[in-house]
Amino acid sequence: MKQNVLYSNNVDATLNSIIEGGNYNAVMVLVDANTRLMALPLLPCLSDAHIIEITPGDDNKNLDTLSHAWSEMVKCGATRHSLLVNLGGGMVTDLGGFAAATFKRGIDFVNVPTTLLGAVDAAVGGKTGINFNGLKNEIGVFAPAKAVIVSTIFFSTLPQQELKSGFAEMLKHAMLHSHESFERLLQVDFKDIDYDFLLTLMQESLQVKQHIVEQDPTEQGIRKALNLGHTVGHAFESKALGDGKPVPHGYAVAWGLVVESVLSHILLQFPSNDLYSLARFVKDNYGAFHITCDHYDQLLDLMRHDKKSHSGEINCTLLKSCGDFTINNTIKEDDLKAALDIFRDLFEC
Amino acid sequence: MKQNVLYSNNVDATLNSIIEGGNYNAVMVLVDANTRLMALPLLPCLSDAHIIEITPGDDNKNLDTLSHAWSEMVKCGATRHSLLVNLGGGMVTDLGGFAAATFKRGIDFVNVPTTLLGAVDAAVGGKTGINFNGLKNEIGVFAPAKAVIVSTIFFSTLPQQELKSGFAEMLKHAMLHSHESFERLLQVDFKDIDYDFLLTLMQESLQVKQHIVEQDPTEQGIRKALNLGHTVGHAFESKALGDGKPVPHGYAVAWGLVVESVLSHILLQFPSNDLYSLARFVKDNYGAFHITCDHYDQLLDLMRHDKKSHSGEINCTLLKSCGDFTINNTIKEDDLKAALDIFRDLFEC
Repeated sequence: MKQNVLYSNNVDATLNSIIEGGNYNAVMVLVDANTRLMALPLLPCLSDAHIIEITPGDDNKNLDTLSHAWSEMVKCGATRHSLLVNLGGGMVTDLGGFAAATFKRGIDFVNVPTTLLGAVDAAVGGKTGINFNGLKNEIGVFAPAKAVIVSTIFFSTLPQQELKSGFAEMLKHAMLHSHESFERLLQVDFKDIDYDFLLTLMQESLQVKQHIVEQDPTEQGIRKALNLGHTVGHAFESKALGDGKPVPHGYAVAWGLVVESVLSHILLQFPSNDLYSLARFVKDNYGAFHITCDHYDQLLDLMRHDKKSHSGEINCTLLKSCGDFTINNTIKEDDLKAALDIFRDLFEC
Repeated sequence: MKQNVLYSNNVDATLNSIIEGGNYNAVMVLVDANTRLMALPLLPCLSDAHIIEITPGDDNKNLDTLSHAWSEMVKCGATRHSLLVNLGGGMVTDLGGFAAATFKRGIDFVNVPTTLLGAVDAAVGGKTGINFNGLKNEIGVFAPAKAVIVSTIFFSTLPQQELKSGFAEMLKHAMLHSHESFERLLQVDFKDIDYDFLLTLMQESLQVKQHIVEQDPTEQGIRKALNLGHTVGHAFESKALGDGKPVPHGYAVAWGLVVESVLSHILLQFPSNDLYSLARFVKDNYGAFHITCDHYDQLLDLMRHDKKSHSGEINCTLLKSCGDFTINNTIKEDDLKAALDIFRDLFEC
C-alpha cells in the first residue's frame, strides 16, 4: 500500500495538479461546518466542486452520516471516474475515505488533513471507517488515498490543545525511529511554533509511519508497532470518557507512552534517562492524568478488552531503546501495576 | 486477487477442514430463511456456529440488512480472528462478503453458494456489495473470500429456471474461452441433468472467470470481458422490471449474448453458424424476449446509462470468434438497431 504523501504549504496548487492530472468527470469535497468555513476558502481550485457537508464531531462518525455522504455522491452523479477530496480532521478523512472506498466498489480520494492529529495519525496509512453501535472504528476498510497533502496552513486557527494532541503521535513515531528523532522533538516549544520547521518534523514523522505501514498494510504484524502508547492510552481515554471527563486522544497517548516506557524500562532495560526526559516533557506540556491504585483493576480490564488484544491478555509494543521495538509483548498484571505506581510517582499524583 | 476455489460435493468435510485449519475464535453463518431451512442442515460442521439470518430477496440487499448483519456480528463478540460463512445465493454472498470485508476493517469469510447463478456469477471474483437508493451494487468493495466451496448438492431442490439462469453465465464464460467449451455446453439437456458432470462444467467455467479476474481484479481493463452479453442484457432486465414483468437475470444475459453475438457478426465477422447455434439453444431453453422497434430508443437509453459505460456511449465486449474477444467497443446506434432487428428475426418476434 504505497501512498503518495505530498508535503507542501502551497496546497491549492498541489491539489489542482492532482485534479487536472486525474481527468475526473466530477470532483466532490467532503467538509464539516468548520472546515467549510475556515479551510475551503483557502482552496480556490475547489470552487466548482460539489460540496458535501457533514456534522463535525466523532459522535457523528456513524452510519447515518456515511449514508448521507453516499446519497450526496449519488445525487452529484458521481461515477467510478470521479474524485472525492476529504478536507478536515480525522473524522472527515476516516469517514470520507470509507465512503469513497465503497462507492461503486471504490473511487479515488485525496485527503487534505486540516489538523496536526489528522495529518500524522488518520490521513496517512490507509485506515478508513466509522464507529458502529458505540464501538470506535468498528466498520471500515484498509484503502490507500490517491494522495495525501500534508501542510500546516490550516493550523494557525486551531487551539493549542489540538496541536499537542497531534504531537503525541509524532513523539510515538520518533521513539520507534531513533534517539536523534526523539531528542529533536523534545526541543519543540509550543509557545513559539515555527510552522515551516513543524512541516519538516511532520515529514520525518510520517516517513517513519509509512515505512512501517508499507511493510504490513493490514496490520498482521509489524504495523502493531504503531500501537506504542495506545494500549494504556486507550484505557486512560475510555476511563476518562466513562467518568464524564473526556481527555483529548493525543493526551491519553502521551500519558500512555510514559507508562509503556516504564514497562519497557522494567522488562527490557529501556534507558532511564530517556524515560525521565519523556516524563518531564509530557508533564510540562500535557499535565498529569490523575489515578489512584483503586482504579488499577478497572484500567487493566479496559486493556484486556482492547480491539487489538487477543484472548483477554494485555498486549503492548515495547522498546529496548528508541528505534528498537518489539511487538506482541504479553504483560503480566503485576508488572503493569508496578508501572502505574511509577507513573504516579513521576507525575506526583 | 488469487482465490481459493474448492470443487467438492463433500461440502461439510471441506468446510470443516477450513474452519479447523483457521483456528478461529468464533464461527458465524449468514443464511436467509430458505437456506437456513434447506441448506444449513446439510452442514453439521456449522451446528455450533452463530446463526445470522437475513430476509431473502434482492430487494433486501440493502443498508438495513447490512446493518443488521453487522449488529449480529458485534453481538456474537466477533473479533478480527472470527470467520463468517456465507451460505446462500448471490444476495447472501454479496452482502455477507461486504459485511465481513468491512467488519473491523476485514475478517475472513467463506462463500458456500447454494445456487448455480450464485456459484458461477457472484461467489467467485471478489465483488461484494449492496444496493443503495435503488441502484444495484452501488456500494461495495473488491474483497476475495478466504475460500469458495463450489458444489451441486444444494441444486436438486431449486426450480429449473434458476439452473438456466446460472447456465447463461456459463455460456458467457465458454464463449470467452474456446469453441470447444461453447460446443460442449450446447449439448446440455436441462430435462436430464447429471449433477456430477455439471460440477465438472462449473469448474471449467469458473477457471475461465478466475483467469480473467486474476489479471485485473479491480476491473480496470480485461475484466470487462466478463461484461459480454450484459450491456444489452441489463437493458432488457431493466425494461422488463420497469414494465412490471421482471425476468431472471440469467435469462436477460442469454438474450443479451445473442444480440451481442449479432453485433460481433456485423462488426467483427463472428461466425454465423455459431450465432445460429447459440440463438437456437437460447430460444429452445429460455424462450423469446418480446420487443418491437418502438422499444429501441428506450433500450438504447438504458444501455447509455449502464454503470460500466463512460460519458454516455454504449460500450460492449465483442467476439471475433469464441475465445477471441475485444473489450471497450463503442457501438453506433444504427448498428445496435440492426442487431436488435436481427435478434427479433431469430426469435420470430
